[in-house]
Amino acid sequence: MQIDLTETRPATSNVRGAEFPLIHPDLRVTFRVEAPEACTVQVQGGDGLGGGPFDMIRDDDGVWSVTLPPVVPGFHYYWLLIDGVAVNDPSSQTYIGYGKPTSGVEVPEPGVDFYDAQDVPHGEVRAHWYYSEISGAWRQATVYTPPDYEAQLRTRYPVLYLQHGAGEDETGWVRQGRANFIMDNLIAAGEARPMIVVMDCGYTVPPTPARGGPPDRQAMQRTVKAFEDFVIGELVPMVDADYRTLDDREHRAIAGLSMGGMQALHVGLNHLETFATIAAFSGAPMFDVDPQTDYGGVLSDPAAFNRRVRLLWMSVGTEEAHFVQRAQHLREVLDTLGIAHTYYESPGTAHEWQTWRRSLHAFAPLLFWR
Amino acid sequence: MQIDLTETRPATSNVRGAEFPLIHPDLRVTFRVEAPEACTVQVQGGDGLGGGPFDMIRDDDGVWSVTLPPVVPGFHYYWLLIDGVAVNDPSSQTYIGYGKPTSGVEVPEPGVDFYDAQDVPHGEVRAHWYYSEISGAWRQATVYTPPDYEAQLRTRYPVLYLQHGAGEDETGWVRQGRANFIMDNLIAAGEARPMIVVMDCGYTVPPTPARGGPPDRQAMQRTVKAFEDFVIGELVPMVDADYRTLDDREHRAIAGLSMGGMQALHVGLNHLETFATIAAFSGAPMFDVDPQTDYGGVLSDPAAFNRRVRLLWMSVGTEEAHFVQRAQHLREVLDTLGIAHTYYESPGTAHEWQTWRRSLHAFAPLLFWR
Repeated sequence: MQIDLTETRPATSNVRGAEFPLIHPDLRVTFRVEAPEACTVQVQGGDGLGGGPFDMIRDDDGVWSVTLPPVVPGFHYYWLLIDGVAVNDPSSQTYIGYGKPTSGVEVPEPGVDFYDAQDVPHGEVRAHWYYSEISGAWRQATVYTPPDYEAQLRTRYPVLYLQHGAGEDETGWVRQGRANFIMDNLIAAGEARPMIVVMDCGYTVPPTPARGGPPDRQAMQRTVKAFEDFVIGELVPMVDADYRTLDDREHRAIAGLSMGGMQALHVGLNHLETFATIAAFSGAPMFDVDPQTDYGGVLSDPAAFNRRVRLLWMSVGTEEAHFVQRAQHLREVLDTLGIAHTYYESPGTAHEWQTWRRSLHAFAPLLFWR
Repeated sequence: MQIDLTETRPATSNVRGAEFPLIHPDLRVTFRVEAPEACTVQVQGGDGLGGGPFDMIRDDDGVWSVTLPPVVPGFHYYWLLIDGVAVNDPSSQTYIGYGKPTSGVEVPEPGVDFYDAQDVPHGEVRAHWYYSEISGAWRQATVYTPPDYEAQLRTRYPVLYLQHGAGEDETGWVRQGRANFIMDNLIAAGEARPMIVVMDCGYTVPPTPARGGPPDRQAMQRTVKAFEDFVIGELVPMVDADYRTLDDREHRAIAGLSMGGMQALHVGLNHLETFATIAAFSGAPMFDVDPQTDYGGVLSDPAAFNRRVRLLWMSVGTEEAHFVQRAQHLREVLDTLGIAHTYYESPGTAHEWQTWRRSLHAFAPLLFWR
């Protein structure tokens, strides 16, 4: 199913039948929108598109267009500015990012198909409803079950809990991240063990009011604590009750991207009785780590930590300077303490989904082997 | 989970944390959007909102708003016109309608909770991938499995095939229609038999180019034939292979809304060996029916038809004149022939989802009892 890049073609993220955005063989991208009465139209988007805003040019029929120079491969959020108002492109499917439905453009990476739908057995992606006392609401978990889950009714499976980033939700890892196809392909190749992947919404209680402002450690700690109570007290018990899981710590991992990475470190390191494997993709903490007090002091006994934790895994994209720096700090702390960890860098990608697709693809094969 | 209508509150269709659109106790709806540099901003939407476009008024901060007079309860598609360009409201979730992601506003119906998430066992909604030779692509079926599906591993279930309307896709019946909650509530009350509901995309091959123009019977027949071949040759066999179904005609029904209703009549009536129950919600054919030649002539032997078909079911909303008229024609043909059928009218609703939610709620309890 790899995209043929010898000719110009509509992005696979377009709505049915839409020609634009158009991907050129050299990865230039052309955007086009009809807006005869608008005064200015611009396109703006994620780092891999070059940021922007880029001015679009009006033709005599009121159709505006612009072609961006070659962009970074992967999935990029974007939006249009029509007379200064940020709106979605009617030609694009929408993806929950920035706290709302947002346009996205999928730019294929030449020679890469690990996240494409291939001719292999496919797992299911299930919306699973359950009531949360902590949220005071019905919640919807997104649950990937591996291809043989319905055929092997006596088999129990290990579970990866996988969290999205800020402004996203439980749909992000499948729709933007293609986690299901990544897992299908790895499992078919024998490179990953068949596993359940649970993707839920990281907003357990309403987000901190200070959003957009400078990091407020206390407010973040309140929301991360609510998420911790939710994962340990509600989510894991629900999953173990409703799915055929292997329900011990050795067969549970928790990982996440960006905000979800910080949440994974917080929940995982504070609950080694529940998780033996922990990963943060572009998600090292924003504050300096104190090994004596942070994470319940679990870093203060490196020998015990190394015996107990099967894998502590981190990644960043080389083009996301702030997150590279935060990861560097954490690695130095861990190295000084003698705490074992694994580190991966995604070359040429920023704080975007291509970094996290590659991270999952590198991380999942390391999980749950005896 | 019924919405408290004693005070003004954000629509449940809003994005997380968005205050507008705001529903008033008397079902007035206030829309608001920030667009300081726009010259005109309007809101336009489905029949139940009153159509529009309605002018929004700018305040000194560049925030535009309008309050619509009391609207019809239910789910209404809508969009903003910013300087004449139709765009989505950044405050709304999006729903696939009109061939693209579209804003929607959920207006509660006082005293009605049959489509709400209630404190009952919930079924799962699964995205199921499979390859279609006819489409030449990987397709994604949306499959509702009833609450006890994973607990009763020896039980086999009847299957309802349920189709969306034009411009929508396989996500419509759950996201706009809340089919899963309707089924959960009916099953919990013992009013519907536990069943699998398969919702797939009615566009098997690219839609007719003449879309938007006058009805072109030949072009419609080509696309409906492709859909027929797909349902009979690919979809039903896949579902019977991959789910624990009761795989005889007595335990299969096909239904749909609008375009999907016409498809259900076409596929069902041409394949009584596969389906014993057939329903069209706001979906009587747009052309006069010839009992001798249409649907493979199956209407030409009413006695045989009445013995073979368990249920032929039709519905419309009272406020969708064209569809009332088409249903009236079909009923007259059936009455003249002496073909048994059941008819339901949704009071006060137009060609919108509230008609189809009520239709499913009226239809599903009639299915699959011995």
